[in-house]
This record gives sequence, C-alpha cells and structure tokens, in this order.
Amino acid sequence: MHNVRPLPQYLVSRFHGWKATNYEDNSAWYRHLARNGQHPRAMVISCCDSRVHVTSIFGADTGEFFIHRNIANLVPAYAPDGLQHGTSAAVEYAVMALKVAHVIVVGHTSCGGVAGCHAMCSGQAPELEEKSSFIGRWMDILRPGYERIKELPFEEQIGALERQATLISIENLMTFPFVRDAVESGQMTLHALVHDISEGSLWQAEDGGRRWVAV
Amino acid sequence: MHNVRPLPQYLVSRFHGWKATNYEDNSAWYRHLARNGQHPRAMVISCCDSRVHVTSIFGADTGEFFIHRNIANLVPAYAPDGLQHGTSAAVEYAVMALKVAHVIVVGHTSCGGVAGCHAMCSGQAPELEEKSSFIGRWMDILRPGYERIKELPFEEQIGALERQATLISIENLMTFPFVRDAVESGQMTLHALVHDISEGSLWQAEDGGRRWVAV
Amino acid sequence: MHNVRPLPQYLVSRFHGWKATNYEDNSAWYRHLARNGQHPRAMVISCCDSRVHVTSIFGADTGEFFIHRNIANLVPAYAPDGLQHGTSAAVEYAVMALKVAHVIVVGHTSCGGVAGCHAMCSGQAPELEEKSSFIGRWMDILRPGYERIKELPFEEQIGALERQATLISIENLMTFPFVRDAVESGQMTLHALVHDISEGSLWQAEDGGRRWVAV
Amino acid sequence: MHNVRPLPQYLVSRFHGWKATNYEDNSAWYRHLARNGQHPRAMVISCCDSRVHVTSIFGADTGEFFIHRNIANLVPAYAPDGLQHGTSAAVEYAVMALKVAHVIVVGHTSCGGVAGCHAMCSGQAPELEEKSSFIGRWMDILRPGYERIKELPFEEQIGALERQATLISIENLMTFPFVRDAVESGQMTLHALVHDISEGSLWQAEDGGRRWVAV
Repeated sequence: MHNVRPLPQYLVSRFHGWKATNYEDNSAWYRHLARNGQHPRAMVISCCDSRVHVTSIFGADTGEFFIHRNIANLVPAYAPDGLQHGTSAAVEYAVMALKVAHVIVVGHTSCGGVAGCHAMCSGQAPELEEKSSFIGRWMDILRPGYERIKELPFEEQIGALERQATLISIENLMTFPFVRDAVESGQMTLHALVHDISEGSLWQAEDGGRRWVAV
Repeated sequence: MHNVRPLPQYLVSRFHGWKATNYEDNSAWYRHLARNGQHPRAMVISCCDSRVHVTSIFGADTGEFFIHRNIANLVPAYAPDGLQHGTSAAVEYAVMALKVAHVIVVGHTSCGGVAGCHAMCSGQAPELEEKSSFIGRWMDILRPGYERIKELPFEEQIGALERQATLISIENLMTFPFVRDAVESGQMTLHALVHDISEGSLWQAEDGGRRWVAV
Repeated sequence: MHNVRPLPQYLVSRFHGWKATNYEDNSAWYRHLARNGQHPRAMVISCCDSRVHVTSIFGADTGEFFIHRNIANLVPAYAPDGLQHGTSAAVEYAVMALKVAHVIVVGHTSCGGVAGCHAMCSGQAPELEEKSSFIGRWMDILRPGYERIKELPFEEQIGALERQATLISIENLMTFPFVRDAVESGQMTLHALVHDISEGSLWQAEDGGRRWVAV
Repeated sequence: MHNVRPLPQYLVSRFHGWKATNYEDNSAWYRHLARNGQHPRAMVISCCDSRVHVTSIFGADTGEFFIHRNIANLVPAYAPDGLQHGTSAAVEYAVMALKVAHVIVVGHTSCGGVAGCHAMCSGQAPELEEKSSFIGRWMDILRPGYERIKELPFEEQIGALERQATLISIENLMTFPFVRDAVESGQMTLHALVHDISEGSLWQAEDGGRRWVAV
C-alpha cells in the first residue's frame, strides 16, 4: 500500500495560508467545537457536484450543517438488510445521534447524475444499464421519478427530473421509521430545494412538490 | 407526499443576502460553470461532520473539488454486484466521467463514526452489531483497521483508527480496476490526510501510512 | 489593549448580505430613525438566553422596542445609592427619556438562571452562595420568589419560579418613584409574560399574578 | 401587586400570527432547542436602543447568540464585592457556563447613552452627576473614555466616544480573571464593532482600537 502521495504544493501553500489567517482568527471557535462536540441544526443532503456550495449560499459557519453529499443528492428507501448503505448510515447518525431539526435535500440544475439517469431510462445509455455500472445502479433510485416525467415535453424533462430527485429522496426518507417518527412527532422537518447554479436562484417545493416557488 | 415544509426564515434571509452579494459579484463565473460544465481538479472524500470544511482549509473555489461526504470518509471495496453503492458511484463518476487528477481522502479528529466503530469492535456497543444498524454495517468497512490498532496502548487507539479510516479507504480505492489503472498509468494520485479540527493542523500519510507528517 | 480580533468571516459575509438586501430595501427608514431619534412604544425586559427572540414573536420592527436583556429578566428594587445599576439605568432611560407606554417583562421556560437560583436556594449549589459569584448575587433578587414557591410539589417549583421572576420584577419596578408615577397616572402599563420556548405559547399574568392565562 | 395589565391587542394579534406561521414552520427546531439546551457560539453585548438589531445584521437564528443589552453596551470592571452586577453575571454565565467562543461588543451611532455621558463629562448635564441618577452613575464607566477624546475637534468627539464605549468594555472584560484566562488560552476571542444605523455600515477595531476599518 505505497500509493499515497504527498499533497500537491499549491494545496500545501493554501492550507498554510488558511492556518495563518482563518484558523488563527477562529481557533477559539474550532477548539470549542472539538471540545464540546458538534450540534448542527440541520442535515443537508446535496450533490457531489463541484458547483454546489450549500455552506456558501446559506452563510453557514463551521459546525452548523451536517452534510452528506452523493451523486444527485439521492436517498434510497429503508432497507435493513445488513448490507452497506452509506447514505442510510448518514441519515441514521443525523437523526438518531445528532437529533437535527431539519433535513434539507438540495438538488441543482445541470446535474450530471440526473442527465445520466434520463439517458439511461430513455434508452440512450445502455452502458449505464449494466450490472457493473455503479452510477447506473445508484441512479436506479430515481427511476420512479422518470416514470412521472416521461410524458412531459422533452425540453422540460431534465428540469422536472432534477426536481424529482429531491422529491423521491423525501419520499424515501419517510420510509425510515425513525425519520417518520421524528417528522410526525414534530421533532424534525423535511425540505426539498433546487439550486439553479447559473442564475443563482433557489426553488422550494410546496404542496408536496406540486408547485415550486422561488425562495 | 405532503411532508415538505418551507425553509426557515433565517435561511431565506441569508440566501437573499448571498444572492445580492456573492452571486452578483461572481455570476459570470457561475454562468460559465453552468454552461461549460464542471472540470474539478480533485475528488475529495471527507466526513459529513459539520466541523470539517475542506473547501475552507484549501481555499477552494466553486468548481474546484468534486466532494463526496459520508460517515467517517470511508470507501468500500470494489463490488460490482448490481446493488446500490453510493460511494462507489461517486468514485466512478469522478474517475471515469470527470477524470480528476487526485482523490484526496480527508479524515479528522473527534470523529463520531470512528469512535462508534471502536466501541463496536471492542465489544462496548452491541447495538451497533445488529443487522438493522446502518451505522454499524457501514463502519464494518473499518473493522480491518481495528485489527491493526487493537494492540496499541488504549489512549492511542482512537487516533490510530482515525488514520486507518483513510488508509483502508485508499486500499479499497485500489481494488477498483479503473482507479488502479489511473494510478498506475500516472493519470491520478491518491492522498490520505487527517485534519485535527482543534489545532487546525493537517497530517498526511507517508510511506504507505507507516509515518504521518504535518503538512 | 491588543485583544480585539477581526470578525469571523461567516459573520462578515452575512453582514454584507444584510447590507445588500435588508439595508438597501429599508435605508429610508433607517436614515429616518437615525435623523429623528428613536420613539419606541415599549420597553421589553427579557433574558439573554439565545432561544428568546421577542422581536420575532411580536413581529417588531427596528425602532419599536427598547430592549434590555439580562440573566433571568430581573429588575432589582430601587436603590439610589450612587453605585452602578445597569438595569435601573435602562429603566430610567426608557421611562424618563423615552416615555415608553409599556414595560413588558418576558420570562421563559428552561431558564438557566432560574434553575441556578432554585438550586442555590434549595441548598444544591453552594458555589452560587459565594460572594464572588456574580450569577449567585444577581439571582439573589429572586430569593423572595423562592420563598413563595418552596412548598409547592417539587415538579411544579421551577415553572412557578420562572413566573415569579417576572412578578418580582414588576414589584421591584413599582418601587421606582418614576415608574409608580407613570403607572398611577395612567401614562404607562406593566406586563408580565412567560414564553414557553418549546411549545411556542405565551402566558400572561392576571390578577396580579394569581392566575396565568394563555395569550 | 395588581399592576400587571393584559397585553395590548395588537401585540396579541401579532403573536398569534407568529404562532401560526413562524412557530408552525420551525417548531421542530424550537423543541430541539428546548430539549437539548442552548449552545450559542457567541455572546453579543449591545445597546438597548430600539434601532440596533444584531440578529438581523448577522442573519442569526434563534439559538445562535447569547445577547446582553444595556445602555451604551458597557461592561464594568471586575468587582467581586458581593453586590448585584447584572452585566458581570451575564458575562460570567456566557463564559463559564456556556463557554462561548466569542464576545462581540456592538456599539452604534446616535447613542443616547453616549451623548448623555459626553454632556455630563463636559459639564452640560449636572443632573446626570447626581447620586440618584442611575443613567449618570452607569455612564461613569465611560468616563475614562471621555478623558481620551476630549482634546479632539468638537465634531469628532461623539463618534470617538461611541468607539471608546466598545474599547473600554473590552478593557474591562479583560479584568475578569475568567475572561482573561479564556482569551489568553485561545478559548475565546473579543471583538469591538460600531454599527452606523444611518448608513448601515459596520466598523471594527484593529490594532487594539487605534484604527477602525469598515467590515
């Protein structure tokens, strides 16, 4: 296992700059967080996409959001089968251990994962149908969303599927008994958002996703 | 599916503030990213923990890092079994679609997931052994790491296990054929780091993890 | 005196956001307030607790409430002894200079100061009895309230003492000659409230505090 | 003690509106805060003035700031004399019980307390010199600040004294042993700001207050 390499110099330099400035100015807060543990108010589930920055758009400080990021901000349905479910583990930790007050699913425009799912479901990407395609199998979570939008005019389908990626995740979250309990007892709320990375706008689901309104 | 709720007002206010300042100042770049797609230079795999902020410590701009965050920054071994593997899908997308130059695994001190794994493996947390524990099953990935550190003096074990969480992930990354190919052909490098969230320091693995040195 | 440090970056960002939105939209009103002085209709005395937000629960605008916040929303008795009395100074300014129409004392549930007073008075917190304990000496104001509630069933005592914290303050306010004059001449009214931060409810004293009714 | 009166109807109406909207939307978070206690990151010391809204300018949510408000945002020097010191009690609670990472003193322009202090110290307000003047005795805390600015051109004196009100408070904070310990051991930082309520700008002290720069 000799495959780890030294960090590129430009990252070393930037880290040293951060240490001498941001860390110096905020070390009291960072030490406080290390000593007293995290108390994030919300879990955010967003995409790995490098253009999505939820801490920035919400002015969030270190310690404020517990953030899980995966391809297309998806949550699978509850499946206590003893297998490895990284997203379900993150949800369990946020709800059961941290007792967050909100779970916020943040989708975004120009999502490569959603585009891949659309291509796969519409027969344009047979390679994603293969058993060995991790991306394809992961995007299977969104197949029920494709069924709901496939009759829309073609040019509306991708946008609608990006919104479905957040709604399907909310539906799947509700299949977890501990999520349902927390929501139904008023301990936790769920939120579905789509961030338009080009226009900088933010849309949120209303009426269970039948309408989307600008925040 | 009527469980989605409006965003808390303070997040709405902060978003409007971001839109009027950060977005206004950078809209050309955001539109460029939306139009031309993302070209991140690295994939970062870090923990969901609210105290870990890799874009901050590396001064990273929007568009620079493709970021996957899960509990304890773990990567499972390659398993093309047709099941859902969110982490493997993220790795596949980063390496095959985005062709990132680096995969950087960033662990951290005070990791709740690692502490849970240590408790489970040392017999202190039987509830994590249950089939229905998503956290327990996810932390199974780190069991081989526990075997390597369990003979250390007790007070050194947690720190050593936090480092193992990054080394095991690097080892597992190398079981993916497309990762191995990219590494061995010199297209991509792997990096294992541990961020001390209290001291603000950053440690990196050398000699395949036999030594850890301050960056 | 080199102990002042730069503001954390996330607060700087949020302030710039506020400036570009809230300030831009309301600058006429803010300039008006700066030019013509404040004319608040009420003085609010509430706790420093981060969970108490009287401007929010009363939909109050900038300029509407003159707000004094201290531990457990207490007002000491009138004592013109030439020493420093921050709360008395605030009351004097509100009544004599601003001529507010109401003084509203807002207590709250889960008050750490009240809990400390209860522990001190019931012999559970000797450290608060020490001369050097600022919290203990401040909570001495509430000792007469403890005498009134100490015979209640134990599980009712804390809630009753939280209500006493507002009633004792009203009683002490009436020992200030200028407060008594304003009340007795019908220029000003006094109000005692307790906000339940969990249930979001608001209770107000009636019959001089013999009954508490939901607002 | 029959002096408590029912809340004015317009405040009752607004409260009911808040309950039906803001509380309904955020009850999960408020219940979380009630159940798990407050973990504010900072203590803010600001003026009672109705035109100063620190939660607004910093986009702060319920639970984020522990806020003490008194006339002219003053902190007296450490005086463990067994008397009642409301401000010192608030500082003790924030630092010792809540272990906040920052204490932020926020002064403001057009401050009536500072103007009164200036009038008193320059001989224009003999009534404030009287033993029975709570405002005068409270503003005595700022007298050392007047000594530093009294040779400035007259039109600069009030602004300079507003800045001194924050600097004197920082100096006095450092006379508290537990504040000094927390600052010197890197557990807590101190910040001095002045908010211009007309222009919406925010200035912060640098170099121990020798320079003030726009945030």
